[in-house]
Formats: sequence, structure tokens, C-alpha cells
Amino acid sequence: MDVVAELRRALGAGRVLTAKEDLIPYSRDASYFEGPLPLAVAIPGTAEEAAEVLRIADEAGIPVVPRGGGTSVTGSSIPVEGGIVLSTRGLGGVRDVRPEDGYAIAGAGTPLGELDELLSRLGFMYPPDPSSSSAATVGGSIATNAGGLRGVSYGNTRCWVMGLRVALPGGRLLWVGGRALKRSAGYDLVSLFVGSEGTLGVITEAILRIAPRPEAVGRAVAYYGGMEAAASAVAELKRRGLPLLTAEFVDGPSLRAIEESFGIRAPEGAEYMLMVDVASTRESLRRHLDEVGAVLSGSSLSVELTADPARIDELTRARRGLYPALLGRRAPGQLVISMDVAVPPSELAAAMEEVRSASRSAGFEVIIAGHVGDGNFHPTIYVYPSAMDRARDLILEVGRIALRHGGSVSAEHGIGLEKRELLAEEAGAWLEAMRSIKAIFDPNGIMNRGKVL
Amino acid sequence: MDVVAELRRALGAGRVLTAKEDLIPYSRDASYFEGPLPLAVAIPGTAEEAAEVLRIADEAGIPVVPRGGGTSVTGSSIPVEGGIVLSTRGLGGVRDVRPEDGYAIAGAGTPLGELDELLSRLGFMYPPDPSSSSAATVGGSIATNAGGLRGVSYGNTRCWVMGLRVALPGGRLLWVGGRALKRSAGYDLVSLFVGSEGTLGVITEAILRIAPRPEAVGRAVAYYGGMEAAASAVAELKRRGLPLLTAEFVDGPSLRAIEESFGIRAPEGAEYMLMVDVASTRESLRRHLDEVGAVLSGSSLSVELTADPARIDELTRARRGLYPALLGRRAPGQLVISMDVAVPPSELAAAMEEVRSASRSAGFEVIIAGHVGDGNFHPTIYVYPSAMDRARDLILEVGRIALRHGGSVSAEHGIGLEKRELLAEEAGAWLEAMRSIKAIFDPNGIMNRGKVL
Repeated sequence: MDVVAELRRALGAGRVLTAKEDLIPYSRDASYFEGPLPLAVAIPGTAEEAAEVLRIADEAGIPVVPRGGGTSVTGSSIPVEGGIVLSTRGLGGVRDVRPEDGYAIAGAGTPLGELDELLSRLGFMYPPDPSSSSAATVGGSIATNAGGLRGVSYGNTRCWVMGLRVALPGGRLLWVGGRALKRSAGYDLVSLFVGSEGTLGVITEAILRIAPRPEAVGRAVAYYGGMEAAASAVAELKRRGLPLLTAEFVDGPSLRAIEESFGIRAPEGAEYMLMVDVASTRESLRRHLDEVGAVLSGSSLSVELTADPARIDELTRARRGLYPALLGRRAPGQLVISMDVAVPPSELAAAMEEVRSASRSAGFEVIIAGHVGDGNFHPTIYVYPSAMDRARDLILEVGRIALRHGGSVSAEHGIGLEKRELLAEEAGAWLEAMRSIKAIFDPNGIMNRGKVL
Repeated sequence: MDVVAELRRALGAGRVLTAKEDLIPYSRDASYFEGPLPLAVAIPGTAEEAAEVLRIADEAGIPVVPRGGGTSVTGSSIPVEGGIVLSTRGLGGVRDVRPEDGYAIAGAGTPLGELDELLSRLGFMYPPDPSSSSAATVGGSIATNAGGLRGVSYGNTRCWVMGLRVALPGGRLLWVGGRALKRSAGYDLVSLFVGSEGTLGVITEAILRIAPRPEAVGRAVAYYGGMEAAASAVAELKRRGLPLLTAEFVDGPSLRAIEESFGIRAPEGAEYMLMVDVASTRESLRRHLDEVGAVLSGSSLSVELTADPARIDELTRARRGLYPALLGRRAPGQLVISMDVAVPPSELAAAMEEVRSASRSAGFEVIIAGHVGDGNFHPTIYVYPSAMDRARDLILEVGRIALRHGGSVSAEHGIGLEKRELLAEEAGAWLEAMRSIKAIFDPNGIMNRGKVL
């Protein structure tokens, strides 16, 4: 069977890429992995066409790698075995927004930023907000159960997905879940697709739960000499039940990168910055900010409280720009590896200390930033290709540190190519059940082969 | 194999009931179904003992029905094929509460009311709050993905479960998920157990996400002549993004029952009452209540706004007491059947009208109450045993009405014995996948046989 000819017949020639220069970008994603060139890139323009791609591939036994914005940092979108890359960029667009019914419907290829802008105009939001939201797509963020900054108050993606349209190997196209805000009808197959990283099928469209934006948001920025003090302050904020919207932290090297790139200067001796947003009301914002300020100032070097949108924007740009800034600081030839683990927040300081120590032993300088409110942190290292073995060992060790502290080897980036060994350790006896579940939906094993399991 | 002797050896004689008078209560739950007497009731005192019960049952090929508070209204806890009822009442108790880490750990047999009282003292809550929360248990409410009054703002149970300890057929006892607030590590098996109604295994313990209680809560009560007007008012509240905590409604017959039982009088011509709670702050409660009042008063007969805890308590008692009051009004020999469906809120008025019409055609007077904010409503009918066939047909028709309006055949009560046929219609092609998933965890089919699938 001439698969490329079949794809061209199904999608039209313009939607099937095979020229080498067109394929190259699809052999990579935002991770440090490199894959071979795929056989072809298929860009279906409709859900039906996406299903047809899977029918053709399944019949031919050719692997399919679904790809959203290509922002995976664990290699989820790498075509390790060649085959067909199915790009969802022809499946974008917000179809419907229904605040009165609590949902929005968007195509898988819709960038999260586009959805957010539209909802924002109505005073609503789709809470998951990975830092990459200008490029990350609805489908890709669902497939990795993405988190983001607002995770501390709104939880992960899985709480916000009501229904999915899914193309399955063999070519079936089905809705699962739907527009009802409550459902207790058999096993939760929607949640099974959330976080499945394209190993079960291709998400083509999603019904997403939305929420009103907070009426007023204020921000506290505090600097600390050590993580222990910063983490204790956040624990106290949470014990008091203060309305935290986000609770971010960055470490000393991150502060220096931010200062260089964005001109935001930290006080002398600062080794950690906390950035805490409170979600409040017009009348209560000042009091809530003051309450947050009182807790943070206890052991901090300095605290700034602001409700000024311009200042908040400036700080947001710096926080969101941190990863790009770190990317920009690598030496020629170096790769940037950004890890992602979660522990219970009270274990954060201890787990981070172990990560620092393991990094030192492995010969890497580590930079740590993350979402302190939910115990999710991202150690970043610069690696020359010659040191990749040591880096791989460190990635494993960081995952194991998280497990020892009661956490998870992946908080919001997924497993991809990077963490299969760690998933096996975390899942233990459940891994076999996961394999059996995969076989139900993808009996011929064409979907995102070599990933997750 | 003498299964009863084995159970006695494993649990001690006092934890295995076999006397007829002890078994009778376990042949029923809160539904209208009646089952045979089970062979035995096993009341494990530890998770390990629960696993041992499953090991013994699996080896003997004897069915097991897990049972929490016995509050199922769809027959989930009925031992249709006899066998062993595994009661979780020996597995209760809140083990740990960690506001700083965002979770509480509780045994499956813990009544939700007990958990709520404890969390409440710390200013926190576990948001799912089925009306039966004084009797419903942690394990049972997870197994049915229970909703409740706060569903409109906090979603269903599935968003609030971080980890589960599960006993599986064959006798394995495993944790799935855990204490990390974020996790993107393989397929979401936690969500698979949420809503599985005891068909995959027995939940023995749960790690639950908790949230701060709202700082200030106020209530608006408005009366309407028709559902259209009431539903439009709630749609407008939602479009404006007002901070709704709950949005309940009851119909005319419910109002009369409430007046009789609780002395709360509705104005002349009232056929619907809306009860809307706003979650606000100390400084903003008055304004938020006024904003809600302005929207509700547009087409209502009267509106009452209150922030008085005593008045709020009185109204809450009436709303929570409605179902017991309806139970008390049945004629001798009548059964009470309370249905449970969900539609997108904008379809609520039309769907309810069809339900009324179908009920009339079937010869039943229907009483409707529900959670208007999330489109979940409960039609209740009184049925003499001789009319059960007509009632069964009406239950099917009500489910189909929900499906035609883009909804679900079960919002928060599960499938149980009652809705297997409806689940097949809702799940369609996915039903086969659900059956295959069940076979992975319960290959010999001992778990809650005859339910859900």
C-alpha cells in the first residue's frame, strides 16, 4: 500500500508533507531529543480526516505521532520510529462559548492563548495555563494533563475537560463525555484520554469547563535567603485559607537571569523570590494583600504588594520569560534540560536540597523554579552532548527523590520519551493495567509508539 | 471451600454476619430495589482484611458487593446475586488533615458529615456534598462520583480525589495516585475508580483534595411562576460571572411539602423556588448579594436576600429535608423513585417540560427539584408496586430526554441496577471498552455483578 498516496487522496496533496525540509521541524519538539524524519506529516483539516489518517495508518501498521504545538519538553512529539506525524494545526478554532452553560468548545489545534483571549473578553477563563500557552494547544495540553501557574487553586487540566472528540486507530471518530456539567455514567473514559500523550488516539476537539475570572487580583513579591523560609511562608498562607490564585518561586540563578533580561533587581542576599497572586474582590483586595504581606514579611528580606496592572504585567512577563531567558544563556552546543516533579508542598525544601546535592555530585549547576503552592518544581541544567549520560542519571535521580518524598515523577510535562523508566517505578504494579488499557484502544500499537509505557 | 469459615478466620467471627436478621438490612439500600439475602456480610477492620475478603471471594468465585452508607438510590449496593456484602463501616476515620499540603486522608467508611465537621473547624472543606452527606461515606461517594449542592462551583467528586487505596480481586492492596497535587504520569487510574461503583475493586482509603471555605456566604431565595424565568435568571447570573456557590431549585409540589414540614411559606402563584448562595468576602458580600438580587428580581414573584446564619440554616434544613419529607408523604405501599439526570443548564426548562409531559402520559404526578446551576435535576414519583412497569418505562424515557438535550442519564447517582440499559445508550460504542477495562481488574467478574455494565 502506498501510504503517502492514500493520505494525499484523503486529505488533498497540500495537507501531506513529504519534502525533507518540511519534515525536519517535525523530527523535533521543545525537548532535547532528536528523532528521525517521519515518513510524512499529515495535516487533517477536519476531525473526519484525522480519523481517516488513523484508518490508513492502522491498516498499514505504520506508527502515528500526534502533534499539537510541539512544546513538549519530554519528547512526546518525537517520531522515534518515523511513520506519520499527525499535526492538529488544521483543527484549530473556538467553536462555541457558553458561559451560561459553563463550557467552551475548541478544536484540538487551538492555541491556549487564543482561547484565553476570547474568554477573557467575556470575563471568563479556562484555568489551565502552562507557561507555554501562546504556543501550546488545547489538544496537546489535554494530552499531557498540563498544569501551570493557576494549578494551586484550580487543579490540573483533568478537572476542566467535560468532553472529547477522539479519532481512534481503525478510523472511528467518537465523542466521549459531553456538555453535561455533571456525569456519573460508567467509567471515566474522558479522564483516561487526559494525560494519555497520544498513545490511545487523537483528540480532535474538546468541550472545556470554564470559570469566571477573579474580580480583582493582587500580587505579592517577596525575597528570601533560603527555601525553607519561603516554603514555610506559603504553608502558612495555605493554612490560613487565603485565596491564592498562583504561588510561584524562582531561585537565585533565576533571579540573576531575570535581572539581566528584564531589569528586575533583587535585594542583596536574595536566593529565592516568591510571587503570590491573590484572587479577591474589589472591596477586599487591599485587605487580602495586606494579610498575605503580613505572613510573607515574617522571614523575608523584602516584600512588595501591588494591585497595579502595569506592574503585575511587568512581573508576569519576567516570570513567563524565565525559561526562554534560561534557554538564551546556554553556551554554544549546550542543551537545556528542564525537569518536572511534584512533592507535597511541605516536602519541597527538603526535596529541593536533595536535588541540589545530586546535581552537584553529577557535576551540574542546577537552576530551580516552580509552582510552590502545589509542590511542583522544575530543576533546569545546561548539558553538553558529551555529558548526556550523566544528565540522564540525574533525571532518574530527581524523579526518585520526588518519589521518596511522596511525590510524582511528572507533575505537568508528562512522561514522553524521557521518563518511561521512572513511570515504571512510580506506577509499579499498575503499569501492567496501563498496558492492557492501551491494547484495548490501540490493539496494533500504532499510537505514539515508544512513549509513556 | 467453606467461605464463611475462611472469612471468620480472616476477620474474626464478630466481623462476619450470617444470621438472617443481621443480613436483612444488607439486602436493601436507599433505592426501591430489593435483593436476596447475601451469604454473609464481611466487615473488615483494616484495608488488609478487605483485600483478604476479595482474595477469598475471588478464589471461590463468589460475588462481592461493596457497601458504604447504603444511600444508593440506583441499587448499587444490592446483592442481586447474593454472595458477600463487604461493608466499609470498619474502615472509617479521618487519618490526617494537611491544609498546607492541600489534602485530607480518610478511611472509606468515614461519613462525609464527619469529615466536613472536622475540616470546618480548620476553615476548610471537601467540596462534594451530596444531600445524604450525614450517612454517605467517603468510599461510596467516590464510587458514584457524587456531586451535590456545591457542584456548580467545585465540580464533581472526581476533581477532589488525589489518591486511593484499593483492594483488588485476587487480594492485592495498592495505592494509586497519591499526595502530589499535580500528576501527569501515565493513565489516570484514580479517575477510573471514581464512579466505578464497586465494579473494579474496593476503595479502602482516600487522599482528598481540600479547599478553604468561602470567607462569607449569603443566600438569595426567589420565587417564580415558571421554570423558564427561573432558569433564565440563573443563566444571567452565570453570564455575569457572579460567584455562585450553589444554585438550587424546587418546584411547586416540593414547595408545598416544605411548607408542611418546615413552615416556610411561598408567595401566591409560586411554582418554583430558586435558592442561590454566593461565596464572597466580608467586605463584598452585601454588594454581591445585591447584584444577585437585582438579576433575580427581574421576573420573580419575590426575592429574599440574607446573610443571617440562623436564617440560612433554617433554609438549608428545609432544602436538605426535602427528600425525607417527600419520602414521608408516600401512601402506604407506595415506593418513592427519585431520578437523576443532567442537561446543559440552558436546556433545563425544555427538558423538564418534556419530563412533566412524559410523567403525565405515564400516569404519574412528578415532583422536580435539583441543582439548576449545573443542569442536574431529580424528578421524583410515587409508585405502587403494581405500576412498576410503567415507572420503569418512565425512568428510561427521562434518561432519553436528557440524552436528546445533550445531557447524561446519570449526573450524580450512578448507574447501579437501574440504568444499565440507559448507560448502554449513552456510552454507545464505548461500552465495549468499559467491559474490557472491567475485565482487566476483575477477570473473574466477582465485583458488584449485575451493576453498571
